[in-house]
Amino acid sequence: MRDVQGERDTRNIPIDRVGVSGVSYPLAVMDPSENVQHVTGTVRMSVSLPKDFRGTHMSRFIEVLEKCRGKMTLGNLEEIVDALKEQLAAPEAEVAIAFPYFVRRAAPVSGAESYTRIDVEFWAMKASRFDFVLKVAVPVQTLCPCSKEISEFGAHNQRARVEIETRMRRLVWIEDLVSVAEQSASAPVLTLLKREDEKALTEMAFLNPRFVEDVVREVSLRLDRDERIKWYRVSVVSDESIHNHQAFASLERFVSFPAR
Amino acid sequence: MRDVQGERDTRNIPIDRVGVSGVSYPLAVMDPSENVQHVTGTVRMSVSLPKDFRGTHMSRFIEVLEKCRGKMTLGNLEEIVDALKEQLAAPEAEVAIAFPYFVRRAAPVSGAESYTRIDVEFWAMKASRFDFVLKVAVPVQTLCPCSKEISEFGAHNQRARVEIETRMRRLVWIEDLVSVAEQSASAPVLTLLKREDEKALTEMAFLNPRFVEDVVREVSLRLDRDERIKWYRVSVVSDESIHNHQAFASLERFVSFPAR
Amino acid sequence: MRDVQGERDTRNIPIDRVGVSGVSYPLAVMDPSENVQHVTGTVRMSVSLPKDFRGTHMSRFIEVLEKCRGKMTLGNLEEIVDALKEQLAAPEAEVAIAFPYFVRRAAPVSGAESYTRIDVEFWAMKASRFDFVLKVAVPVQTLCPCSKEISEFGAHNQRARVEIETRMRRLVWIEDLVSVAEQSASAPVLTLLKREDEKALTEMAFLNPRFVEDVVREVSLRLDRDERIKWYRVSVVSDESIHNHQAFASLERFVSFPAR
Amino acid sequence: MRDVQGERDTRNIPIDRVGVSGVSYPLAVMDPSENVQHVTGTVRMSVSLPKDFRGTHMSRFIEVLEKCRGKMTLGNLEEIVDALKEQLAAPEAEVAIAFPYFVRRAAPVSGAESYTRIDVEFWAMKASRFDFVLKVAVPVQTLCPCSKEISEFGAHNQRARVEIETRMRRLVWIEDLVSVAEQSASAPVLTLLKREDEKALTEMAFLNPRFVEDVVREVSLRLDRDERIKWYRVSVVSDESIHNHQAFASLERFVSFPAR
Repeated sequence: MRDVQGERDTRNIPIDRVGVSGVSYPLAVMDPSENVQHVTGTVRMSVSLPKDFRGTHMSRFIEVLEKCRGKMTLGNLEEIVDALKEQLAAPEAEVAIAFPYFVRRAAPVSGAESYTRIDVEFWAMKASRFDFVLKVAVPVQTLCPCSKEISEFGAHNQRARVEIETRMRRLVWIEDLVSVAEQSASAPVLTLLKREDEKALTEMAFLNPRFVEDVVREVSLRLDRDERIKWYRVSVVSDESIHNHQAFASLERFVSFPAR
Repeated sequence: MRDVQGERDTRNIPIDRVGVSGVSYPLAVMDPSENVQHVTGTVRMSVSLPKDFRGTHMSRFIEVLEKCRGKMTLGNLEEIVDALKEQLAAPEAEVAIAFPYFVRRAAPVSGAESYTRIDVEFWAMKASRFDFVLKVAVPVQTLCPCSKEISEFGAHNQRARVEIETRMRRLVWIEDLVSVAEQSASAPVLTLLKREDEKALTEMAFLNPRFVEDVVREVSLRLDRDERIKWYRVSVVSDESIHNHQAFASLERFVSFPAR
Repeated sequence: MRDVQGERDTRNIPIDRVGVSGVSYPLAVMDPSENVQHVTGTVRMSVSLPKDFRGTHMSRFIEVLEKCRGKMTLGNLEEIVDALKEQLAAPEAEVAIAFPYFVRRAAPVSGAESYTRIDVEFWAMKASRFDFVLKVAVPVQTLCPCSKEISEFGAHNQRARVEIETRMRRLVWIEDLVSVAEQSASAPVLTLLKREDEKALTEMAFLNPRFVEDVVREVSLRLDRDERIKWYRVSVVSDESIHNHQAFASLERFVSFPAR
Repeated sequence: MRDVQGERDTRNIPIDRVGVSGVSYPLAVMDPSENVQHVTGTVRMSVSLPKDFRGTHMSRFIEVLEKCRGKMTLGNLEEIVDALKEQLAAPEAEVAIAFPYFVRRAAPVSGAESYTRIDVEFWAMKASRFDFVLKVAVPVQTLCPCSKEISEFGAHNQRARVEIETRMRRLVWIEDLVSVAEQSASAPVLTLLKREDEKALTEMAFLNPRFVEDVVREVSLRLDRDERIKWYRVSVVSDESIHNHQAFASLERFVSFPAR
């Protein structure tokens, strides 16, 4: 059969990225202690396409995914992009793997345990040098300092989402970034809370009012002190309870040591 | 050209509904005072298909939509389903039109005006008798009575959504149902609030704690007193600020007079 | 601490459903052969609330979920709704669990294996009698019979989704319904296809043109012949490649034996 | 009342972006000929926040939006970002306005008219210099050249989406980019097609097979010849009909004259 994709292209236009996206696939994610979590991944894989080729061979992306689905770690992401480069004869390859990840949490007073869902993304790219970004999105609570200050009682509060992306010097794991996010907000968000826990979180939030601007800065202060991190982007999006829209703040920073 | 859809089908299976969905179309919605709001509608139109026909003629749905896009009122929905029945030679036709609709609101203290988005759906069906349901989804705030009662200060609150569906004896307009939803919650949600308004809404919510169960009952009490309404379904979904999930309540009722 | 939810309500309005929704939770789904698939579930749990109670105890839903997350089968769904009824002292309880489920498939010519994602939902309710519905949504391809007939060459085709809901006399498993859906369409959809497979599927679809009306009837014929099934609803939604909207068909049927 | 946002912040961290997002608002978009289209916009507005300020004043974003909602053109976007900079005393401001926009189209043979929905985004930013990007997303059809070549009959085809972002020397309007997208694909996608039109589009697609790589290059060739454009990014995402995932290609280019 004719290899239409492999034909010579004369339009003289290199393509930055060509590949597959929205691939829903079962994956086994291993943390640094070799614990496995079986997750449902949404995968995007792509390569750059030199100007002389008409197309790439899309099925080879899936073949590479098939081979590595049983074990997906921060350690073998470079192998995956290397495999893509080789299988597709490409100068550059990229992979992005998004998945819901569950961390076990205990309620603050009762100790009742439940899972919190964290949205995680591994992103890796390689031309000559390997580049990797770990992203986590963590649900938290924000309580408005202005509302608390100006009102005689109460203060509006709401669910917000802290997103942290990092490039690292040494491995930082998902749970580390979840802690940073939760400590920087007015209060954490948990799936199972008994009445005594609800009381504790309500009071904690009232004692820790935070604008989205505050949360983003608190995250920044914590990440600046972490020698394992060399770059980060943090954004906080708050589903305002007095509005039908979101408030957000974001910042991006390279960290040099000693830090500011 | 051969009319493949019009061919005789021998599988002996009538089809309940066949049609088009997800049709994004510009529509002019007229309220009872003949005011026009230009909206982006998402339309589903369908008919029943008797067992003897292989298929329906999908393009005719769009022709009917084209004809009525300039004027879409509660008054001409019956004409639309009649046109579908006739154009598609069908014993039964159905149309559902969902669109964002904007109501003008003033902030409680400053009087500053802005728009609140309401999600509206018109649903109509006709076999022999015409049936019509108006649905509105209204953003509101809920403040948790339990959290307020058990905590020394503060109370968790969040954005919630009140959905009201009604069948009517006499016309009830969108704005009427928006008012019912807002009055039944802890506080309304507005797009533009100055500081004095934020103070007012924070305090209002604190003084009106409501579970989703309370909101659904408060809506129910109000609708029971409205002689224009003969059936309703109300549901309240609250984006809990201490959890990463929703709390919800719903009920459905035929209203007979005198009411309960 | 005061039990605000447990207080007596005097508004005299029973609530049909009150509970939690959008709960993202890791679950272990067991098939009839005791094989386990670790999935990310989205859970809704609710009970009916008699008129005398102000609210339900939302945390108990999560406690029940926590207890059964390790093992979720069609066999223990009744235990879950029974536990909800008991823990929440409710006359009626309902649970709906949606999750992506992966089935292993071989390409038709090369035999190359990959996973196909199926969207599954378990729904169960119990007042006095236990009721259960299994729902699967299967991606397939449809090729338009009209387009093929009237065009000199080619025929438009597209991805579609077959949704089958069933109530059963005897256990029908997910894989059974996936097969019914795929055999009823123009061709199956697979994640990994080598060139020889792409050729095979392209030709298969061209030889099996199907309107959404045809697919829904073909599914119906197959389910009518299956003695394990007592009720079903099937709908097919096709992402038309010549339009920016969907075509759909649906029907619902109780199956009595001998069938039509 | 205390101005909590205006307080001095000592954490020494400037914030890149702070503002509101997901604001759903009715807007009047004017094209170059002063024709008005009433649209439902989703708006994000933000400013940079110097390190000395604790927070920004979120309500002022909405006040600016309120003022300009009646008239939103490519011409007055700079006024909007200037107003944001002034009202919020910010060194830099950004606005992004996404909305569905409808273009009137005639079917190729019957001439039957209908609307095609285009997703448009205006993005503007200003620190010292004003920067503006127009983005359109256009539905099209792609027919696979490989599938056509290797199969004895037929060829898989599907709906795809061409996204074009441009920075301009001189005004390029939405309709211009829609034409570029449609001419670069296998065939356009229309809402209303009579049978003769369906035949025409089916045959047109079969005679113009295009990989996503081809479409992205065809768009690139057309934009390279347009002297009004100084930068563009184009991406094509195809909802593969033989897979349950997407194929995509993208490229970004500054255009210098004479072009390549």
